[in-house]
Amino acid sequence: MNKPNIVVLGAGYGGLITTVNLQKSLGANQANITLVNKHDYHYQSTWLHESAAGTLHHDRVRIPIKDVINTSKVNLVIDTVVSIDPKEKKVVLENDELTYDILVVSLGFESATFGIPGLEENAYMIESLNSSRLIREHIEYNFAMYHNEKEKNQARLNIVVGGAGFTGMEFVGELANRIPELCKEYDIDKSLVKIITVEGAPTVMPGFDPQLVEYAMNSLEARGVEFITSAMLKECKPDGIVYEKDGEEHSISTLTTVWAAGVKANSIVEESGFETNRGKVEVRPDLRSPEYDDVFVVGDCALIMNEETGRPYPPTAQIASQAADVAAQNIKDLVEGNKTLTAFEPNILGTVASLGNNDAIGTIFGDKKIFGWNATVMKKIIDNKHLLKLGGIGLLLKKGKFNIFNS
Amino acid sequence: MNKPNIVVLGAGYGGLITTVNLQKSLGANQANITLVNKHDYHYQSTWLHESAAGTLHHDRVRIPIKDVINTSKVNLVIDTVVSIDPKEKKVVLENDELTYDILVVSLGFESATFGIPGLEENAYMIESLNSSRLIREHIEYNFAMYHNEKEKNQARLNIVVGGAGFTGMEFVGELANRIPELCKEYDIDKSLVKIITVEGAPTVMPGFDPQLVEYAMNSLEARGVEFITSAMLKECKPDGIVYEKDGEEHSISTLTTVWAAGVKANSIVEESGFETNRGKVEVRPDLRSPEYDDVFVVGDCALIMNEETGRPYPPTAQIASQAADVAAQNIKDLVEGNKTLTAFEPNILGTVASLGNNDAIGTIFGDKKIFGWNATVMKKIIDNKHLLKLGGIGLLLKKGKFNIFNS
Repeated sequence: MNKPNIVVLGAGYGGLITTVNLQKSLGANQANITLVNKHDYHYQSTWLHESAAGTLHHDRVRIPIKDVINTSKVNLVIDTVVSIDPKEKKVVLENDELTYDILVVSLGFESATFGIPGLEENAYMIESLNSSRLIREHIEYNFAMYHNEKEKNQARLNIVVGGAGFTGMEFVGELANRIPELCKEYDIDKSLVKIITVEGAPTVMPGFDPQLVEYAMNSLEARGVEFITSAMLKECKPDGIVYEKDGEEHSISTLTTVWAAGVKANSIVEESGFETNRGKVEVRPDLRSPEYDDVFVVGDCALIMNEETGRPYPPTAQIASQAADVAAQNIKDLVEGNKTLTAFEPNILGTVASLGNNDAIGTIFGDKKIFGWNATVMKKIIDNKHLLKLGGIGLLLKKGKFNIFNS
Repeated sequence: MNKPNIVVLGAGYGGLITTVNLQKSLGANQANITLVNKHDYHYQSTWLHESAAGTLHHDRVRIPIKDVINTSKVNLVIDTVVSIDPKEKKVVLENDELTYDILVVSLGFESATFGIPGLEENAYMIESLNSSRLIREHIEYNFAMYHNEKEKNQARLNIVVGGAGFTGMEFVGELANRIPELCKEYDIDKSLVKIITVEGAPTVMPGFDPQLVEYAMNSLEARGVEFITSAMLKECKPDGIVYEKDGEEHSISTLTTVWAAGVKANSIVEESGFETNRGKVEVRPDLRSPEYDDVFVVGDCALIMNEETGRPYPPTAQIASQAADVAAQNIKDLVEGNKTLTAFEPNILGTVASLGNNDAIGTIFGDKKIFGWNATVMKKIIDNKHLLKLGGIGLLLKKGKFNIFNS
């Protein structure tokens, strides 16, 4: 290839780390690198629940892309991807069109609403910095409104969270931390505020170790969170939800439903005609799409099978970040004419879910269970590792979480 | 009178200062003093516009009543006044009923909407701590919402202020200060935000010195505020306003209309059967109602005629506070059996309107005009004077405005 155009779509964990690696490993005369992103910032999607709860300011959650990308080496395009045409090697943006020789699809996730009526229109999603910030504002607005109505409206103080998986639990943990502060700010009696989590499975955090799940539930219930399990959300209305449990319909009146029960790959992938499995591209071991030798897919748009379990790996930041390293290596090899590409092997270092209040649960080193303060410290180490990888010690010092005694 | 019951309704400027004076001047064996207020805090209504704009936290605007009232001397009742029966000497509260021998009506103001359609339902008012805090939240919510909609809605960034009188001008001044910060917080281009003031009179701040008015308009226009004068508000809708100017109807699309064009006395006064003039009790020189020897009225519920001009004095904190001193003196005299009561003479020390951004205009010593930094300092001195009077040096140090270089 004669100075190929490498185009990276999306500056989430996968896309940004791919780009950072490429800018280091390829010389300016070897390739043109273009990074396309909707915003001029990268955000840590694993911290969005904190911004949504209002316990961490969204500016702590985001990083200006220019802080980690050298724009004399990488062409940064702030625009929104509309579609990809892999046959014509073209990407259509809202305001432009790009051609590529090598493409990296790292367009991240969007919320999956499974066709539940009213969910898309009425529920709030933790899916971007904008949507998370809006949740914080929405809750504050309802608390502020409470004392401005003659008839006190309890729906303003009821917060329903759909889904007690990883994100749902992390969010209610932060929210439980925030409520006392919110009540003080808006002169509201704490005992009036209800946080109710509705989960379809018979237990919270399905798939997690039962002992840790028990620990997590106790920790959150002690801080006033209510759990309704084996309950299927039937409808989300502007002023409440309807769920079914034990064959009966129940309703909860609320103006705040936060949907944290499902994500899927960015729908552009499916719409652009890629062969998909559950909406994702089931990549080859070298992270390329099965159909196109010039298209890599990393992060939440990629489906990577775990050969041991026969099930796909979960869409985590950890895997996206590791895949980005391999994708960048393989792109460099392609550019330099090497035909043998590296196969990606995820290396799951651990999974830790924060519960707020300096509490967390997780597993590390395969099956070692951790909880409480140890797990909190481990969670912060994981959080900080990404920053170190992305922008070195400078970025870590600027955005890292160092206070292990406070969240 | 044999240990009379003195009941003070409302802990605004008038009521709270009356009570503070009475607790100092009357012995515990001379009278029972009861203060009734809706909240357990007093707020400085002249600072509410700052809390509404979000430039001063509402906790800086309020003072816990217990910080200035000795509850072993004064019976503090947190309840809402429903009606007064001056013939039976009774006050009906939401949760109780009180009888009195001497009553002080200091129930403050409410917004006057002059029957303009939709105003009460759709506009926001700067009339209490709750309503001001809501304005701040409402603006923030709309800014946060802006980037969460595919079709950008300009109405979220248009803020219309009805009325360019004292409160309206002070509010837009603060708002103009806040916009750059809000835009940074919500990633909004500053040039998209519009602050539009709609005023019925041909000029802003009708009644003020024309030179000062000119100064104020220049100051605010330089910070992006738009003024539409000689314009009558015809309707306020959830998504916009309609006004008439030069015989033609115009509309502005906005989700935020703040109505600052009129206040009236608390309507309980009229509803309770007092003889009223423009909704207020035109008090005798000793501040008693014309009909009842045992009812004093101070603050915004009292109409006090300026004999020189033949027009009523404006409802200001300054006059409420001075009237409270005289009312407390006269009550003490009544309790002690003195028949000669003191006549109230307002002593207008000056009027200063803050314009935000360390700018202000005003008149002091009768007709000396001040503006700019001098006026800002004078405004802060006026603000601090009230705190000193209310709670001494301790309260002044805690809540005063000392930074004369920043608002």
